[in-house]
Amino acid sequence: MSDSKPIALDAMGGDHAPHEIVAGAVHAVRERGLAVVLVGSPRVLYEALADHDATREIPIVRAEEALAMDEGALASLRRPRSSIAVACHLVRRGDASAVVSAGSTAGVVATGRLRLKAQHGVLRPAIAVALPTLPHPTLLLDAGANADTKPEMLVQFAQLGTVYAQLAYDIAQPKVGLLTIGGEAEKGNKLVKRAHELLQAAPGIRFTGNIEGFDLLTGRVDVIVTDGFTGNVALKTMEGAVRYAFRELRETISDSRVAQLGALMQRSRIRELHRRLDSEAHGGAVLLGLNGTVVIAHGSSRAAGISAACRLAVDLSAAGIVSTIGDRVASAQKHHRRR
Amino acid sequence: MSDSKPIALDAMGGDHAPHEIVAGAVHAVRERGLAVVLVGSPRVLYEALADHDATREIPIVRAEEALAMDEGALASLRRPRSSIAVACHLVRRGDASAVVSAGSTAGVVATGRLRLKAQHGVLRPAIAVALPTLPHPTLLLDAGANADTKPEMLVQFAQLGTVYAQLAYDIAQPKVGLLTIGGEAEKGNKLVKRAHELLQAAPGIRFTGNIEGFDLLTGRVDVIVTDGFTGNVALKTMEGAVRYAFRELRETISDSRVAQLGALMQRSRIRELHRRLDSEAHGGAVLLGLNGTVVIAHGSSRAAGISAACRLAVDLSAAGIVSTIGDRVASAQKHHRRR
Repeated sequence: MSDSKPIALDAMGGDHAPHEIVAGAVHAVRERGLAVVLVGSPRVLYEALADHDATREIPIVRAEEALAMDEGALASLRRPRSSIAVACHLVRRGDASAVVSAGSTAGVVATGRLRLKAQHGVLRPAIAVALPTLPHPTLLLDAGANADTKPEMLVQFAQLGTVYAQLAYDIAQPKVGLLTIGGEAEKGNKLVKRAHELLQAAPGIRFTGNIEGFDLLTGRVDVIVTDGFTGNVALKTMEGAVRYAFRELRETISDSRVAQLGALMQRSRIRELHRRLDSEAHGGAVLLGLNGTVVIAHGSSRAAGISAACRLAVDLSAAGIVSTIGDRVASAQKHHRRR
Repeated sequence: MSDSKPIALDAMGGDHAPHEIVAGAVHAVRERGLAVVLVGSPRVLYEALADHDATREIPIVRAEEALAMDEGALASLRRPRSSIAVACHLVRRGDASAVVSAGSTAGVVATGRLRLKAQHGVLRPAIAVALPTLPHPTLLLDAGANADTKPEMLVQFAQLGTVYAQLAYDIAQPKVGLLTIGGEAEKGNKLVKRAHELLQAAPGIRFTGNIEGFDLLTGRVDVIVTDGFTGNVALKTMEGAVRYAFRELRETISDSRVAQLGALMQRSRIRELHRRLDSEAHGGAVLLGLNGTVVIAHGSSRAAGISAACRLAVDLSAAGIVSTIGDRVASAQKHHRRR
């Protein structure tokens, strides 16, 4: 079984690498019972593991280079032995089931494309992010892998997201919405208007129409499709707005004596809520459409976030997301040729 | 002086028209000392004014038709005697200083373009929205007038926003940021990358580089430039996220007895904050680049929002925003030809 293979965890990527990454690996192994290999500088990682008495529990695979957090696609070409490149290589060779990295998104995407290649029939891999709605998350894709896209790519993003929602949240026929600037079919830019037509005719997709920015966190649909530019702006806008609301709230409730007392009573609950809304909780974005599962943890992830990302990677890999996407894309293309 | 002319207030546009619009007009006249004419159905408006004993204070201009809130650009062409069309006509004829409408944005934009026409040299009028940052608002444009734009249009949006920030917030050289998906110059889609180059070379604009969705509410720049599709998605995403944060907060703090007591102590302050962050407070979006000032109040505006929108319209009109934009656009074009 593929899920008995370990996760290849890029130990050098992320704002708090390598220490929080190593701590996350230790948590994933000890608390979640997952198998993990750390990829990075052996000397540094051995020392970090020693701090947890974990040198015998978690193997290290050597990668002498690393991509810095501010390095993007170009650097990934110049560094074939970076920790993320080696992690991809382990999956490609069949020695690991999935990759987890908290490195720069642009670097992980570029390296993943280069080392794992897009699946047969996939026009462009896309980043899917799970938004914190209830009873299950809402998937937004593309969250930033492709700044310029064609309408046909948006239809594929709908297929990728549909498979993800089916496997991860057990939704038989996930509702798919197209992110645009109004509910009516003709609302949007040229890209979206054409994608709307294509989505209505696409087999195997339950397209329920346009949605607007208001709907990102209402759970109105299960999968939200958009180009990577708009998706990335929307996602960061959302994070910024939630942060803003909490900042304003904190100022408001620490403004008077009576209110302060009230605030004291609630501090832990508000802190807990803030953490839940924070990116840490959702366990990371997933790069879909490659020959291998790649989970991109938030750059600011600490141990808990890394451990959650490992869990997600194992689950998606064990559910066979790569082969299911392959089947679905092939059948959509067969349908397309038959018409 | 142009500001002695009244505001032409579209009394039939908005979710709460005509009663809240009329109440807003009464507030603007009595509490702010502004001059207002109501445009719409005389019978309906006379009755509404009578409820406020204001039939002698506020004149009515007849318009027998109205655009419904779900009607867009096409309907505005078919209804030359709609209340918003007649309001624009009053400005065009010199009988009013500015238009205020809470009608459908698409309808107001289409009618404004058709009746007032774009200023000489303006490629596309744009919607500027004031985001609630401190010490002064941050202007975001285009917030939805143009779904498909060219890089040159984004440069003009920067000029329009610069003039608005100078006149409304008294900022000598407003900082302009370009909304995209990363800080580095090469981050973005084709539109944004080309606009980045043009903005760096544009005269009279203090371009400080790229910004991301995180920065919409941090006040890092004074003017945020984007295409109308991205701007509209970002704005609605922001509103949705703030609403979400407050909804979650409400559930969190009404979840336990102790917390409830705390919540009780703070209820009024939290409600006040929520209202401040709500769209009502900012007095409306402004359609820039037409031969006349057009303020688009939020569709859900009540009397206070309408009155604030009238204040904004009077201030911008009195500051000469239309002629200043005309001068600035002409001088940029002269500079362009000289190069």
